[in-house]
Amino acid sequence: MRVVVAPDSFKGGLPAAEVCAAVEAGVRRAVPRAEVVAVPMADGGEGTLDCFLRARAGDAVEIAATDPLGRPVKARYALSGDGRSAVVELAAASGLPLVGDVPPDPMGAATTGTGELIADAVRRGARDVLVCVGGSAGTDGGTGLLRALGVRFLDAGGGELPPGGGALARLASIDDSGVPDAVRATRFRVACDVTNPLVGPAGAAAVFGPQKGASPGQVAELDAALTVFADVLAAGGGARVHDLPGAGAAGGTCGGLVGVLGAEPSGGALLVAEAVGLPAALAGADLVITGEGRVDGQSAGGKVVSAVATLARGRGVPCVALAGGVAGPLDELHALGLTAAFSLADGPRTLDELKADAAPLLAAVAEQAVRLLTHRTAR
Amino acid sequence: MRVVVAPDSFKGGLPAAEVCAAVEAGVRRAVPRAEVVAVPMADGGEGTLDCFLRARAGDAVEIAATDPLGRPVKARYALSGDGRSAVVELAAASGLPLVGDVPPDPMGAATTGTGELIADAVRRGARDVLVCVGGSAGTDGGTGLLRALGVRFLDAGGGELPPGGGALARLASIDDSGVPDAVRATRFRVACDVTNPLVGPAGAAAVFGPQKGASPGQVAELDAALTVFADVLAAGGGARVHDLPGAGAAGGTCGGLVGVLGAEPSGGALLVAEAVGLPAALAGADLVITGEGRVDGQSAGGKVVSAVATLARGRGVPCVALAGGVAGPLDELHALGLTAAFSLADGPRTLDELKADAAPLLAAVAEQAVRLLTHRTAR
Repeated sequence: MRVVVAPDSFKGGLPAAEVCAAVEAGVRRAVPRAEVVAVPMADGGEGTLDCFLRARAGDAVEIAATDPLGRPVKARYALSGDGRSAVVELAAASGLPLVGDVPPDPMGAATTGTGELIADAVRRGARDVLVCVGGSAGTDGGTGLLRALGVRFLDAGGGELPPGGGALARLASIDDSGVPDAVRATRFRVACDVTNPLVGPAGAAAVFGPQKGASPGQVAELDAALTVFADVLAAGGGARVHDLPGAGAAGGTCGGLVGVLGAEPSGGALLVAEAVGLPAALAGADLVITGEGRVDGQSAGGKVVSAVATLARGRGVPCVALAGGVAGPLDELHALGLTAAFSLADGPRTLDELKADAAPLLAAVAEQAVRLLTHRTAR
Repeated sequence: MRVVVAPDSFKGGLPAAEVCAAVEAGVRRAVPRAEVVAVPMADGGEGTLDCFLRARAGDAVEIAATDPLGRPVKARYALSGDGRSAVVELAAASGLPLVGDVPPDPMGAATTGTGELIADAVRRGARDVLVCVGGSAGTDGGTGLLRALGVRFLDAGGGELPPGGGALARLASIDDSGVPDAVRATRFRVACDVTNPLVGPAGAAAVFGPQKGASPGQVAELDAALTVFADVLAAGGGARVHDLPGAGAAGGTCGGLVGVLGAEPSGGALLVAEAVGLPAALAGADLVITGEGRVDGQSAGGKVVSAVATLARGRGVPCVALAGGVAGPLDELHALGLTAAFSLADGPRTLDELKADAAPLLAAVAEQAVRLLTHRTAR
């Protein structure tokens, strides 16, 4: 029996690798000779670098980069052992928490540092870059990032715009002639778990601007500026990203990556699954056990459980989710491919108790689930 | 797909029939066309009468009987619809709570009323009587019960002994010539879930005497008196019940029923299972779902989950237990035949919350278990 264990971390509880170890112990109690393959997962957020590094025998690379307000910041990204693939988290150099020490600058904050990390990865040989967006300090449409990769954003007079989303109101043309061939040859994928379009009432400025300090007036200015950006992109023969689902992620960074670099946006967990080799691991598996801190209707979005269920379904592999909490209805997840979900709770317990005993409880419920799947009645 | 649902009540929570309804709802969500057979169970204690009456289309019969101290008491037993079978609970007419209003009389308390209930059932045609023992007020070896069925307990002078265990110290002979043929033709089964022998340090007097008000000196007297009773039984050609496991149940009532009437002692849940027709219901089943308030190592005793698992194993039917709480290790239950056990807890919850939501939570976990058993990946 071949069992793949591919859980997310239990946020605030066990890291994914420890979830794997606990589940494996339970699987072995049910089927001592089972082949158990641990593939710790993440959803493009917390834990993604570690899970990629573990799966791809890579190292974290730390470099000097630029924070959202132009100040120096040390930031890290993940490079695979073979140097061909990288994972860059936008939050590392361009996240809102990095500028929590000063008043917000929603108009000027930029994603420059993330572009520097990407440039470094490409310089070292990476040609497959997963950009995990989310949590950006600004709303610059990813123009800071793109600028660090050689793209120039010009006003009607041909002058280069200053950083930040506000300045895009004066954008007249985009010059990508300075983008190095290595960057052009690189496949960019964007892990984004929101479906917001770039502009409009559900767009990057309207929905995420206020939490970055934008006033109602600034929200309107940023939305108009992003519209100019999208118009210029479309006029230049690029993709039309105004209404692209997900384009509004991270202050429009996803839209910019798609529009300028032809990046492919997708759910974070699915992209991470591909990056860590989960599809290959599932080949020939008799069961995959996934999990996360909480499984509910929300999990049908871009989260780990839904990604694993989707991949499992495509290969005819039963998929069981184990979680600290399971809140129905699970119909959407079942439709995606989730066979069943169980809480690790073994009775009345507080959250703290569940966290403290998570490992043995996971082992216990994994054992029971495998016993049931394999009909191990003792005869 | 044929699913048998055979749970105990959840003590302090759902009655067994409501557990059945909730589980059935969950099973149908997983497999809408499943044939679901509800067989509410009990373990010989609380809920046994109701579960028998439901299964056997019977009625409760209430009669005037004698309480442990010789006072009148109304007590009820269960008679099957066909009048051939009865279930009598010793606690109904001979239980300790019935005499809580007066100082304890451990030497004189007797099981007379239980015998009156049995006599009534036999008079109405019952020839198969399940006696659920436990909770007796006295330690009379069941002699009060037997006396009500026509047995006489005599001293050396041929005089009839007074009621109660203490008087058995003077027992010289047992005269069963007055036992009616109908009683002789009746099959008696005793549901007892303890393994205590009749006498000795683990016997009826030593272990259960103190909780019935017996002083250390009275315990010694009662133990000696029960030894006399067992000696007389053996000398008269009866079974030797001194060390018989379970003979000490209910103040030695089990021992007396075995010794005088050839009753068959067994675990309560297994006898109830037979009385309600569970073995027949399991024929051809694809799954049996059992459950109780709490499943743990203790459940490997005479409780419902172990009885259902044992019956399921004998028929090759997978057996899943659902419970408010599941406490491992479950190795013994697995060895008996339990395939898997799951708690209905869906995350951090208080006991009160679990009780309040028990029905929907049971339905949810039953659905998940059936989905897993049937590998219902959506393809």
